[in-house]
Amino acid sequence: MVLAVMEASFQRARRPEQKDQRREDILAAAGRLALESGVARVSLGDIAAAVGLAKSNVLRYFGTREEIYLQLAMREGNEWAAAALAALRGASGFSATAAALADAYADRPLYCDLTTHAETMLEHNVSVAALRVYKLWAIDTYFTVGRQITTACPQLTDTDGASLVMAASAFVAKLFPLTRPPEALRQLYEQEPEIARVFPPLRPTLQRMIAATAAGLQATH
Amino acid sequence: MVLAVMEASFQRARRPEQKDQRREDILAAAGRLALESGVARVSLGDIAAAVGLAKSNVLRYFGTREEIYLQLAMREGNEWAAAALAALRGASGFSATAAALADAYADRPLYCDLTTHAETMLEHNVSVAALRVYKLWAIDTYFTVGRQITTACPQLTDTDGASLVMAASAFVAKLFPLTRPPEALRQLYEQEPEIARVFPPLRPTLQRMIAATAAGLQATH
Repeated sequence: MVLAVMEASFQRARRPEQKDQRREDILAAAGRLALESGVARVSLGDIAAAVGLAKSNVLRYFGTREEIYLQLAMREGNEWAAAALAALRGASGFSATAAALADAYADRPLYCDLTTHAETMLEHNVSVAALRVYKLWAIDTYFTVGRQITTACPQLTDTDGASLVMAASAFVAKLFPLTRPPEALRQLYEQEPEIARVFPPLRPTLQRMIAATAAGLQATH
Repeated sequence: MVLAVMEASFQRARRPEQKDQRREDILAAAGRLALESGVARVSLGDIAAAVGLAKSNVLRYFGTREEIYLQLAMREGNEWAAAALAALRGASGFSATAAALADAYADRPLYCDLTTHAETMLEHNVSVAALRVYKLWAIDTYFTVGRQITTACPQLTDTDGASLVMAASAFVAKLFPLTRPPEALRQLYEQEPEIARVFPPLRPTLQRMIAATAAGLQATH
């Protein structure tokens, strides 16, 4: 009871800008660690150690490790969407559209990693409230970029545009992990270069596959 | 030293067919648990408990939890390929090709789950030897199914065929996790059906996206 009161007064004593700064520190550390080791291999303890806090203290700012990364996915996703929208504004046709989307991803390895793990990992172990915010953001982002795609590709509908964003993120989830092979796979690639050769480089493969899907979507109407 | 000798003689005493049976029991239990909870949420301890062995005992048969699931991915993948090849033999055109691939996946939730996690999880924490076997199997399977695709779609090259298998598995990795929402997401979908409606059912969406990619691949030549 005494502890609870002390804790409450400690929290009241913290100014909002200090709390905001702490949240930013946590997000920045989580992003840095994910860029180094991959989001799947970063624990809450790693993040806490990187900002010099106890795990319990980090959990005052974010409900779980996954909520930290879901928050980061929305921030990085906003940057991805801004870059994609800017490139799409000057684009015309399937190939230019595909290049706009592929470049916006390939330039952002942290967002590639986060979107790769969104449905399989980051949407697990989070609150309903956090999921609501994330899902509404994701729907809005897919449809906003999707609509811009239809101005570059007038043959496509709004639904096609959103489908193409989904397809692009699916190709990222399949192709991005190949850019970060685990140590044993790196050894195998060195021993047998003909195995390594089968696995294609991210940016051009992403672009080719997105262009193919864009060109074929109208055929499915 | 005495223990090592005892262990060696214990292993010698085991007949090969008993060891084979034990391996089968482990694979069957791992598959059952993955179907129930999803492969990402099954631990080596869960598998050991399900077959009534100590974890250290399971590790005499497979090097790691991931090696168990990589082995299972090849078995389930062989069944997937056999079904896809059989359906492709009678198929002609992009839509029938897409239906053959989509059905072979949608009928096999365990393989969908395993292929979703192949690059991000199952290829980590395994030996170089296990990776070599798996990668050679994966290349062979992609190209075998890819070649059969070119007889159903003569406009496509062998490389297009293998690319289409990659695309199909990318769509599975993005769409299959949506069929198994975590509890909090299930609650959100109940509270806000308009969010649930945006996320499409697996089989028809898979078929539509594969058909689109197939139809567009020739345009990228």
